[in-house]
Amino acid sequence: MNSTTLLGLVAGALTTVSFLPQVLKTWRTRSTGDFSFGMLTLLSAGILVWIGYGFLIDSLPVILANIVTFALLSVILAFKIIYK
Amino acid sequence: MNSTTLLGLVAGALTTVSFLPQVLKTWRTRSTGDFSFGMLTLLSAGILVWIGYGFLIDSLPVILANIVTFALLSVILAFKIIYK
Repeated sequence: MNSTTLLGLVAGALTTVSFLPQVLKTWRTRSTGDFSFGMLTLLSAGILVWIGYGFLIDSLPVILANIVTFALLSVILAFKIIYK
Repeated sequence: MNSTTLLGLVAGALTTVSFLPQVLKTWRTRSTGDFSFGMLTLLSAGILVWIGYGFLIDSLPVILANIVTFALLSVILAFKIIYK
C-alpha cells in the first residue's frame, strides 16, 4: 500500500469514526431535534453516489469510508424518523 | 470533463449542499445539544485530511467538496462551542 492510499484511509477512518460518538449519543438520548432532516437525507444520498464514484476511480479509501459512514448515518436517520 | 469526474462532482455537491439546511437550522435555533462534540471535531479533522488526499490523487471533486464542507461544518462547530 502506498502512502497516498494510507493517507486516504486515515482520512476515511477519521470521518467514519466521527459518527460513532454521534450514534452513541443519539442512541442514549433518542434526541434528534437539532438535526436537519434535509441534511440527513441529502448527505445519505450523496454518500451513496460517493461509493459509486469510489469504484469508478478505484479508490479503496473512498469506497470503504463511505460504506461504513452510510451505515452509521442510517442509524441517526432512523432515530430522526422514529423519534420525531 | 469525463463522466467519472461529473459523478464525483454530483456526489460532492450532494454531501456539501446537505450541510446548508443544517447550518440554516442551527443558525435559526442556536441549538446544538444533540450534536456530539466528538463527531464535529473528528469529522472536521478528517475532512482536512481528505483535502490533502484529494490533492495527492488529483481529484477535483474530493478537493472541492471537502473544502466547502469544512467551511459549513465550522459554522456548526462554532455554534456548538459558543452556545453550549
